[in-house]
Amino acid sequence: MNSETNIKKGFADEEFENRTLRAQEIMHEYELDGILLTTPQNIRYFTGYDSQFWESPTRPWFVIVPLSGKPIAIVPEIGESEFKKTWLDEIKTWPSPRPEDEGVSLLKSNLENVKKTFGQIGLELGSEMALRMPISDFLKLKEVVGTNLVDGSNAIWDMRMIKTNEELKKIKFVCSIASDAYNVLPSTLSIGNTEREAVHKLKIDILNRGADSVPFMPGISGQGGVSQIVCGPTDRILDDGDILFIDTGSTFDGYFCDFDRNYAFGRVASDVEKVYQILWQATEIGIKTAIPGATTNDIFNAMNKVIQDGGTIGNNVGRLGHGLGLQLTEPPSHRLGEKTVIKENMVLTIEPAMEYAPGKMIVHEENIIIQQDGAELITKRAPKEIPVIK
Amino acid sequence: MNSETNIKKGFADEEFENRTLRAQEIMHEYELDGILLTTPQNIRYFTGYDSQFWESPTRPWFVIVPLSGKPIAIVPEIGESEFKKTWLDEIKTWPSPRPEDEGVSLLKSNLENVKKTFGQIGLELGSEMALRMPISDFLKLKEVVGTNLVDGSNAIWDMRMIKTNEELKKIKFVCSIASDAYNVLPSTLSIGNTEREAVHKLKIDILNRGADSVPFMPGISGQGGVSQIVCGPTDRILDDGDILFIDTGSTFDGYFCDFDRNYAFGRVASDVEKVYQILWQATEIGIKTAIPGATTNDIFNAMNKVIQDGGTIGNNVGRLGHGLGLQLTEPPSHRLGEKTVIKENMVLTIEPAMEYAPGKMIVHEENIIIQQDGAELITKRAPKEIPVIK
Repeated sequence: MNSETNIKKGFADEEFENRTLRAQEIMHEYELDGILLTTPQNIRYFTGYDSQFWESPTRPWFVIVPLSGKPIAIVPEIGESEFKKTWLDEIKTWPSPRPEDEGVSLLKSNLENVKKTFGQIGLELGSEMALRMPISDFLKLKEVVGTNLVDGSNAIWDMRMIKTNEELKKIKFVCSIASDAYNVLPSTLSIGNTEREAVHKLKIDILNRGADSVPFMPGISGQGGVSQIVCGPTDRILDDGDILFIDTGSTFDGYFCDFDRNYAFGRVASDVEKVYQILWQATEIGIKTAIPGATTNDIFNAMNKVIQDGGTIGNNVGRLGHGLGLQLTEPPSHRLGEKTVIKENMVLTIEPAMEYAPGKMIVHEENIIIQQDGAELITKRAPKEIPVIK
Repeated sequence: MNSETNIKKGFADEEFENRTLRAQEIMHEYELDGILLTTPQNIRYFTGYDSQFWESPTRPWFVIVPLSGKPIAIVPEIGESEFKKTWLDEIKTWPSPRPEDEGVSLLKSNLENVKKTFGQIGLELGSEMALRMPISDFLKLKEVVGTNLVDGSNAIWDMRMIKTNEELKKIKFVCSIASDAYNVLPSTLSIGNTEREAVHKLKIDILNRGADSVPFMPGISGQGGVSQIVCGPTDRILDDGDILFIDTGSTFDGYFCDFDRNYAFGRVASDVEKVYQILWQATEIGIKTAIPGATTNDIFNAMNKVIQDGGTIGNNVGRLGHGLGLQLTEPPSHRLGEKTVIKENMVLTIEPAMEYAPGKMIVHEENIIIQQDGAELITKRAPKEIPVIK
């Protein structure tokens, strides 16, 4: 874990206080008396509570962020001792598992205790969110609770989309170690390796460099390109003429990087060379376009022009990049017609994709932070020419 | 990846056909015309579709299993090419992201096309489940779709709780390699290591032995025991008198193991020795009680008697074991009053926990398969005396 000592884990209480104060301003805009959170990333964002136990679907966990004051945790007993170590003051618990009342009555009374200013509480009901509790419990709660439960997802994304300086440090760190691992990878591979072996090597290297986890690392190969970018690796053997695409969402202290690299095996066909160049240029233009005040639509159009001029026949990704942070992908999306305004301290991927012949797609990706005067590249830029592995 | 070649990845189409036929029998019992699935594990269970892309919350994915015939996939375009490789015949797609209609209209028409026998379709609405789609879209759908959307979670758990022989092979494999790694771990540790270093070593070893991922590996230490078992590791230094508790949910081909081990550092206090013995015996009795026809309540009571007689002051876990499979924890729960009948081909954890002094808890855990004549232990049994690391 050679690099891990370079950066501290966790956040000072002040960080959570500031996030909460900012959230409360946003709640005023959206006229919410509070927000109710049920998912790992949102709960961690406001409390710092970190656990891998979210893998267990047995118990729901709840945090209420009121319009003023500290968040309140309503959690299963198994979480109490560790929640007491967070900056929160109020930790309410129930003995769980208890399917007949899995925290619902306790949640109801606490929601009703939230001071009523606007008469509504926001929940994770909208885009790019899902509620982590049994929906039959939610429907029951909605019927009996003495306040309106409404969609608060836009408010929550407004909070999380703009990163704090402390969050940026974590994202930069994980981007940096993953970049180094990608750069070393070609020297450890040769024709005859499998996709799975390549992914395994990269994963172990990224963990050894100090990442906490590698929840996302598809590795896909094909002659001259790939047909998709979300499944794999398999035991397919890497051979002359293949392109190996590896993408990773690795994490440090909860924060993701999300970028890919492409490697050629044996020789590089001239069309691959050309498409790689086009995508490298599209990325360059995407990065340049991502300035405060521009929109996601602008970023899409700038990159899309390069790809269209380059002769793309399409791609199945549906957008050319997105936000990232506590999740692998977050709003906004760089897609046609989406007019989200780019702001300082957003973290974005720039991800042009191009299918240049049926089933042959190549995808580039870099990560940036939006600074006052434009994008700061936080991944180490993909080489201008595709690395060739013999 | 030394052990990986011992066992094949994936399943034959016949496996999915058989799962679907069995599911359809259960759907008859529950009077469901179909079930609608949205979560990674349920979709993988019926289709074999495997992807790490579930990390991205942007796009919902849907599979309908009708009362007869093959499941139907309704998925974002990014998933089409890989879904075409599954045993399914019907793959419907929409261009995603498209928040204004994120698959909802396509889902609506496909739900309405399901043949009406009982007039209701089951969804993942109940215990130990959550719906992976924006709930505002679900509420909209519920209002406009021409069939009743009801809770199908009991039916789904009935399907998944009884494992097929092919599923058992995967679970046994991951239990076996994790056992080997746990056994080797003490020889690689010494006083002065941190929790994080211990967890890192074990994680890398399990990956090297052929696991696909290690999504769950808390490592917690304390003098004579631990106060909780779901958060950590930290940089705490392991010292004389400490107990290090490590639990893991590692996966192979989607299937989890879930068991822990305890290690003492320096010396073993006499009360730790005693409690470790009590828990070892409670585990022994839990394993013996887990026979077809017994209930989860029986298993709880058998273990609980040993723990009570041993002088427990409680624990915050709320149960003494549970099911496992495609998820780290699955129904049933070994808890007081839960009367689920133990059946052949269930996979269960036997997990007695005991707090013997305030903040000092020790937890044991093994994994078993229920066979016709009783439990088959599939983890390599924890040593009868706690391993001591100097």
